[in-house]
Amino acid sequence: MTAHATSMRVKLPVVCIILEGVTMVLFAIFVRYDKETDPKEWHMLLGKNGSHDDKNIDNDFYFRYPSFQDVHVMIFIGFGFLMTFLKRYGFGSVGFNFLIASFGIQWAALMQGFFHSLEEDNKIHVGIESMINAEFCTGSVLISFGGVLGKTSPVQLLVMTIFETTLFAINEYIVVSVLGAKDAGGSMTIHTFGAYFGLTVARVLYRPDLHKSRHREGSVYHSDIFAMIGTVYLWMFWPSFNSAVTIHGDDQHRTVMNTYYSLAACTLAAYAISALVNHEGKLDMVHIQNATLAGGVAVGTAAEMVMTPFGAMIVGFITGTISTLGFKYLSPILDSKLKIQDTCGIHNLHGMPGIIGAVVGSIIASFATRDVYGAGLKDVFPRVANEERTASTQGINQIISLGVTLGFALVGGVLVGFIMKIPIWGSPADTQCFTDEIYWEIPEGDDDGHGTMMSVKQDDPDKII
Amino acid sequence: MTAHATSMRVKLPVVCIILEGVTMVLFAIFVRYDKETDPKEWHMLLGKNGSHDDKNIDNDFYFRYPSFQDVHVMIFIGFGFLMTFLKRYGFGSVGFNFLIASFGIQWAALMQGFFHSLEEDNKIHVGIESMINAEFCTGSVLISFGGVLGKTSPVQLLVMTIFETTLFAINEYIVVSVLGAKDAGGSMTIHTFGAYFGLTVARVLYRPDLHKSRHREGSVYHSDIFAMIGTVYLWMFWPSFNSAVTIHGDDQHRTVMNTYYSLAACTLAAYAISALVNHEGKLDMVHIQNATLAGGVAVGTAAEMVMTPFGAMIVGFITGTISTLGFKYLSPILDSKLKIQDTCGIHNLHGMPGIIGAVVGSIIASFATRDVYGAGLKDVFPRVANEERTASTQGINQIISLGVTLGFALVGGVLVGFIMKIPIWGSPADTQCFTDEIYWEIPEGDDDGHGTMMSVKQDDPDKII
Amino acid sequence: MTAHATSMRVKLPVVCIILEGVTMVLFAIFVRYDKETDPKEWHMLLGKNGSHDDKNIDNDFYFRYPSFQDVHVMIFIGFGFLMTFLKRYGFGSVGFNFLIASFGIQWAALMQGFFHSLEEDNKIHVGIESMINAEFCTGSVLISFGGVLGKTSPVQLLVMTIFETTLFAINEYIVVSVLGAKDAGGSMTIHTFGAYFGLTVARVLYRPDLHKSRHREGSVYHSDIFAMIGTVYLWMFWPSFNSAVTIHGDDQHRTVMNTYYSLAACTLAAYAISALVNHEGKLDMVHIQNATLAGGVAVGTAAEMVMTPFGAMIVGFITGTISTLGFKYLSPILDSKLKIQDTCGIHNLHGMPGIIGAVVGSIIASFATRDVYGAGLKDVFPRVANEERTASTQGINQIISLGVTLGFALVGGVLVGFIMKIPIWGSPADTQCFTDEIYWEIPEGDDDGHGTMMSVKQDDPDKII
Repeated sequence: MTAHATSMRVKLPVVCIILEGVTMVLFAIFVRYDKETDPKEWHMLLGKNGSHDDKNIDNDFYFRYPSFQDVHVMIFIGFGFLMTFLKRYGFGSVGFNFLIASFGIQWAALMQGFFHSLEEDNKIHVGIESMINAEFCTGSVLISFGGVLGKTSPVQLLVMTIFETTLFAINEYIVVSVLGAKDAGGSMTIHTFGAYFGLTVARVLYRPDLHKSRHREGSVYHSDIFAMIGTVYLWMFWPSFNSAVTIHGDDQHRTVMNTYYSLAACTLAAYAISALVNHEGKLDMVHIQNATLAGGVAVGTAAEMVMTPFGAMIVGFITGTISTLGFKYLSPILDSKLKIQDTCGIHNLHGMPGIIGAVVGSIIASFATRDVYGAGLKDVFPRVANEERTASTQGINQIISLGVTLGFALVGGVLVGFIMKIPIWGSPADTQCFTDEIYWEIPEGDDDGHGTMMSVKQDDPDKII
Repeated sequence: MTAHATSMRVKLPVVCIILEGVTMVLFAIFVRYDKETDPKEWHMLLGKNGSHDDKNIDNDFYFRYPSFQDVHVMIFIGFGFLMTFLKRYGFGSVGFNFLIASFGIQWAALMQGFFHSLEEDNKIHVGIESMINAEFCTGSVLISFGGVLGKTSPVQLLVMTIFETTLFAINEYIVVSVLGAKDAGGSMTIHTFGAYFGLTVARVLYRPDLHKSRHREGSVYHSDIFAMIGTVYLWMFWPSFNSAVTIHGDDQHRTVMNTYYSLAACTLAAYAISALVNHEGKLDMVHIQNATLAGGVAVGTAAEMVMTPFGAMIVGFITGTISTLGFKYLSPILDSKLKIQDTCGIHNLHGMPGIIGAVVGSIIASFATRDVYGAGLKDVFPRVANEERTASTQGINQIISLGVTLGFALVGGVLVGFIMKIPIWGSPADTQCFTDEIYWEIPEGDDDGHGTMMSVKQDDPDKII
Repeated sequence: MTAHATSMRVKLPVVCIILEGVTMVLFAIFVRYDKETDPKEWHMLLGKNGSHDDKNIDNDFYFRYPSFQDVHVMIFIGFGFLMTFLKRYGFGSVGFNFLIASFGIQWAALMQGFFHSLEEDNKIHVGIESMINAEFCTGSVLISFGGVLGKTSPVQLLVMTIFETTLFAINEYIVVSVLGAKDAGGSMTIHTFGAYFGLTVARVLYRPDLHKSRHREGSVYHSDIFAMIGTVYLWMFWPSFNSAVTIHGDDQHRTVMNTYYSLAACTLAAYAISALVNHEGKLDMVHIQNATLAGGVAVGTAAEMVMTPFGAMIVGFITGTISTLGFKYLSPILDSKLKIQDTCGIHNLHGMPGIIGAVVGSIIASFATRDVYGAGLKDVFPRVANEERTASTQGINQIISLGVTLGFALVGGVLVGFIMKIPIWGSPADTQCFTDEIYWEIPEGDDDGHGTMMSVKQDDPDKII
């Protein structure tokens, strides 16, 4: 067997080494410890005599670190295992997720630094918040990955990562800093952006002959259970995700609670609708693995606001219903009519729920009053609190932010999709989609362990020849 | 194939939508943010001028949130995966666990609110502690689920959840608020209650012809490894479980440590006895998956007290021994003589260890003195510290609480068991137990991924026809 | 089938009960709650009147507990699942890991207590830090376990644990307390020690006829995915591991960040080199599961120091490269020439990266100046800050510590290897390596769940007869 166009032997090392090399050089030039991480600056802050007293330390790191780790688990375990549902793409799901997230968190720190936080010394000062924000940015790439899962090479995915994180950082800067929109859990900047970017890329990369690999697009019994590891971790830690960068105190507390109740209500909706739309009344693992999470997306903007637990549950229940119906009825139409082959159904889990989240956030923001928020208004809506704008102007800015985000996602997706389509990145043939065999060494023998290292597996007609 | 009595197509959506609808209406009427979650109240607490200073915020949320997430993982991953050991019930184990826990945490917040914390404004004010308490309550339902695993429909399980959480809240109110018993980790209120409730339900739902499904009651190699994910997560986070609602400071610290050492000693006992009772000296996965955890149950009442690490280890070691012996010798007797078909052996993991925990707690409480506890006595035994009762009276109240709990569990289990037995909930036939096929769409093909979407799986004689 | 020499029916219970019994007696005699865990002492510290005010409590426990749980997950899930890659040794991997870690954390608390922290009352006062340190010590045993995985009985592993934790405690005492070396994340004391101890034991236990079991030494598809659970958890929580016992504030913050960036860069190197050294350009799961973690090991000493994110990335990238090359080219040589049968490749993941970490730490320590560290110098290098020694002397002591550690590992490994070789511990025959069948009850039936409890599995030629 000779090396062929999809061989990663040269392409992957070259791309990895160039990307990591450029990243390291940029880190050397631009990235510095922030003042809480640098020993000299930190101890100067602590007092002239440098006396170190645990009681006086700023607790920001300690309050955010557990949330950071929860987000970290969502990005690497949550997304990685959610995508292992495919019967023969488990290595690629968790493995490419691992690769692109590892690169994404580095590149995002640079891009977000350039657009948000270059300080007077022209340096990017990294700390716990920049780590969390880089994970968020990477999350949007992993959402897009779900749309093209099984149909792209790792090099294509790295190419997507470098461009998507960059566009994410620009869009986030416009939405949050210029337009002053609130989007702590990223209904717009993470989910809507990641989903519509990924769907657009999937459209550009449309494969008319994908039917040659469709028999591998399903799950097997144990791969569905692996995927549930991803689902449940995403579900459990979503309150940490939405609250990871909100202000300490009531904001963070409220964001956790709203997200929690939205997800709980969403789960009941997903089970109800999944049974309802199946002609035998059987539950569909695709719905359970995905639509149960839509409630977390749909409060990504509003969870920080006073939406009340009841409001969160209503939003969660409606979104769980729409998401499940989307998997059942809309995805086949996107595939057959719009030529969008959305492997993981990101339109149903992130796309529509993200838009719902943006609209809900806009409406709730429009009705914010000092009567409800009291002195807390300045934490949630600083520009309303300091009378720079009215609540309804805030609401309008939220909706404009959604439009801007969709614009970046669609235009960016087209551009990056065409870059990914250049036939030099080792994209798999139409007969080689949804299989690990072309990019991974696959162990011999069956899952009962009876095979030997010497035996050759002959029974897979899709084995590369 | 036409819809038959076990079809969930109408029943599950109707029950889910009614339950969630009622829950949402009750939340709208009764549930409000607590003062740490409401922006206006919180900032009024912070000071008239509403100045926000991180240094001044109450740390309660930040100290409890990591423990809350650990408990959350135990409830959704721990219980869910522990039960995936069955060879063909992995979807039901993790999926129904997900469903009933999602509903349970909502309904429990209402029920616990009604019985414990209706405030002067007749509202339930929810915050981080109510979320933790709701997860605890849900834990007892999941314990009962283990007793009827594979033999109940999701609708039956939801029916069980709504009644069991309600009874839990009443019993908890009597034990904790009326009798003044200490039970931070829930040896009585969670484990004893959940186990004997579940065993009673299992007795009422006794199936004389269960042998028709017994060939599916075992595990396969990989399902046992999935189950170990559940075991190890439960084991690791049990110190967080027992300490999640104890008072900050030495109480919480001590509870963590006692639980930790009890579990470590328990694990060695489980391995020792598992090998000893096997005629080939082989370890049995059922014991390792379950009996290793009994040490956490057995210090659920006493871990907060001054039992010393040595005392915790003794309790753990003895309980690990009894639990393993229970799996080997007692469970078959319960099954054949008492007609209790306890799928997961909850009597061995939660029942007996829960009673041991209650007795140990009672004994240690009886000997509490100001000499040992110092000023900390008021945190652990407030009614003893303020001389409302003596230590031995506290001990007696602990034992009375065990009796009350057993009473609620047994009487409640009979009542709810008969409700669950009403033949309208879609319970599986005796030939259809321990299989996902009747409630779930099962992917085609074997676990090596060779099957195609077109093929029909013919080799399972238990497939519904 | 009669009991034979490998039967654990008597040996395992006897050893477990003796070890746990001795441990409990020593705990009863020597172990006491520390002052933050004992109610009387704690409340005396809080104030004469024992008034309990959350604002005043020492936050040490609360800041360390989330890190403790992350380390706990690494030890029990991380190591346990990382080793499940073997096709038929999943029970042993996660199960023996569970057993020896449960014993290790208890014995380590005693041994580290005897060597480090016997206080004036001749008692060992345990608290959150002693729990973390015991987990670290246990980590080194689990590294060694990786070297002998599949070729040892559980009794042999317990024997190894008792001696290795003891030697670890002595070496740690010399390195940290006598030589004053810094090694917060344990590049030397945990990784180098555990790896070379384990490799030496593996050498002593060399099996010339291991080829009789080699056909079982590989993975199957799903076992590789289980192993990725271990990998990703180790990877995600490594920042918590390296920072778990560093000083609060900038030290802990900086350690987290350096470890994070080192791992991210290491991951890209592992993917790049894995594809490069495969003649078809395919990624090898062995590399992805292991070499991606080498970056965490390699900054175990230096992450606390001011190595800058860029410095951490350089170290991570180089170590990821060396580790992957080690798996590809060095391990086969160790096996064939040096007769070291290193099942998990611990030399590549812990051995070489540990030495790199020690050297990097020594170099960075040598250049420590008050100009860079400011008043923080006393936290990182107290003996330099108080002018007891110069920075270059600190660097020399770091390198001496590496030498001492290697000495303890090699000499200790030889001694303990020969103890483990005594033919009374039930070691498996050469034909019985890498299989769970001799120590575990294996469920009947294949992984599709079609087998029945009555059927006898006839198709495994390795089944014990």
